Amino acid sequence: MHAFDLATAVRGGPGSWKATVDEGWTIGDRPNGGYLLALATRAALGEVDHPHPMVVSAQFLAPPAAGPAELEVAPLRAGRSLSTARVTLSQDGRPLLEALVGAGHLDTDRAPEWQRPGGPPDLPPVDECVRGQADIPGRVRLNILDHLDVRLDPATIGSFLGRPSGRLEMRGWVRFQDGRPPDPLALVQAVDALPPTSFELGITSWAPTVALTVYLRGLPAPGWLACVLRGQLWRDGWFDEDAEVWDAGGRLVAQARQLAGARPRPA
Amino acid sequence: MHAFDLATAVRGGPGSWKATVDEGWTIGDRPNGGYLLALATRAALGEVDHPHPMVVSAQFLAPPAAGPAELEVAPLRAGRSLSTARVTLSQDGRPLLEALVGAGHLDTDRAPEWQRPGGPPDLPPVDECVRGQADIPGRVRLNILDHLDVRLDPATIGSFLGRPSGRLEMRGWVRFQDGRPPDPLALVQAVDALPPTSFELGITSWAPTVALTVYLRGLPAPGWLACVLRGQLWRDGWFDEDAEVWDAGGRLVAQARQLAGARPRPA
Repeated sequence: MHAFDLATAVRGGPGSWKATVDEGWTIGDRPNGGYLLALATRAALGEVDHPHPMVVSAQFLAPPAAGPAELEVAPLRAGRSLSTARVTLSQDGRPLLEALVGAGHLDTDRAPEWQRPGGPPDLPPVDECVRGQADIPGRVRLNILDHLDVRLDPATIGSFLGRPSGRLEMRGWVRFQDGRPPDPLALVQAVDALPPTSFELGITSWAPTVALTVYLRGLPAPGWLACVLRGQLWRDGWFDEDAEVWDAGGRLVAQARQLAGARPRPA
Repeated sequence: MHAFDLATAVRGGPGSWKATVDEGWTIGDRPNGGYLLALATRAALGEVDHPHPMVVSAQFLAPPAAGPAELEVAPLRAGRSLSTARVTLSQDGRPLLEALVGAGHLDTDRAPEWQRPGGPPDLPPVDECVRGQADIPGRVRLNILDHLDVRLDPATIGSFLGRPSGRLEMRGWVRFQDGRPPDPLALVQAVDALPPTSFELGITSWAPTVALTVYLRGLPAPGWLACVLRGQLWRDGWFDEDAEVWDAGGRLVAQARQLAGARPRPA
């Protein structure tokens, strides 16, 4: 069994599931948002009639701690092409994350009926990218990088060198360290695997995700995932961030958008 | 009192609210998704401590009928900068729409800390655009256009002339017919006011919205709203659609994304 499946395992159900928020998938002491959403999605998939998440929309209420958690699942619809369930992740009775999960059946091979011209992102090859480091002096430990192999486009790592690009942009390759092949649940993780784009505005403090929506658009081929993050507006301490995930076959397999906070440290 | 406020009025609460799904805001016999989301958002705002919707994420389970509806509101968080509530819109005990509403305080005048270069869309002037018609021969009646004044960019109305552009794109101006000035609730409506972009792929049947997320980014100035819709991928009968809404002052005031269905009629 792979680390990601162990860390997102749920037991019990139906209705009420138990899980452990794994300390191995944290940024400092805060669990990664994509990881939490994958955990919530796994619980929902335990109670719907379709195999794949198609659309996951969540709001993050407060960061969970590593340790035991409860996931309450309420089925909302059982349709022919889509089933929907609500998931509430709580600790000690306090709701921390609420998600709506629409599940369906993703096809393996069908070509898009239409796709905007442009194709996969123009990322440098993996071996010309910079490997994400769990330990960087002066920063919190990124336990999640023990599990995710992240290779960042040198053009978007300025913040780590004291020269942020000044744009809400981040690009890189992502795969599991232990060779687990990607699947739709892994894509829910992958959309939130790179450092936040706010780093490239020079804000290197934690960027709390308030809302995150993921559309799953295809079954990913084995291999590296190319992730491209891009934001449009930072205003009043909030910024938006779009993520695209492209598989090794050059197919767009996930689209995500999040609203997150970015506030400079007081001078 | 303006038509939009009447049509989104809720009474009762806390916990359980009553409303009427207004037949004046329909496409054929189906209520418009942005209208329904504004109605749900209004109920949530009745139970949180902040005045403005900041982020609304919803999934549509089945289309409501015009007529009485119940809105169950569950507060989930009461924070300093953000309060969050869940809303379930039901008819006859059946959940039809579920939404998470994060409310905060939108500032009036503060300039963005950063914004992607590009600025407001390059729309033709209002009087060079084509007015949306409630009655088009051979199509369902668009009651909503009795209330919304929609002016479409001639470059994106090919589907109405039998010459769809072949791209997921739609652009136009939107305001209320009765002069009601825009506010954040109106923006929740405006993100879903134009015809679906799938029309321009030649699919002119109803495009059922499965999920819709709206980020409110500023208080809109009085006047026309410029709406720009753009999608990236139509695959297996589903397409994504991003909406930007810019106010009369040239400020980006809302961003939205939806996943919707588009299936050609069988030949």
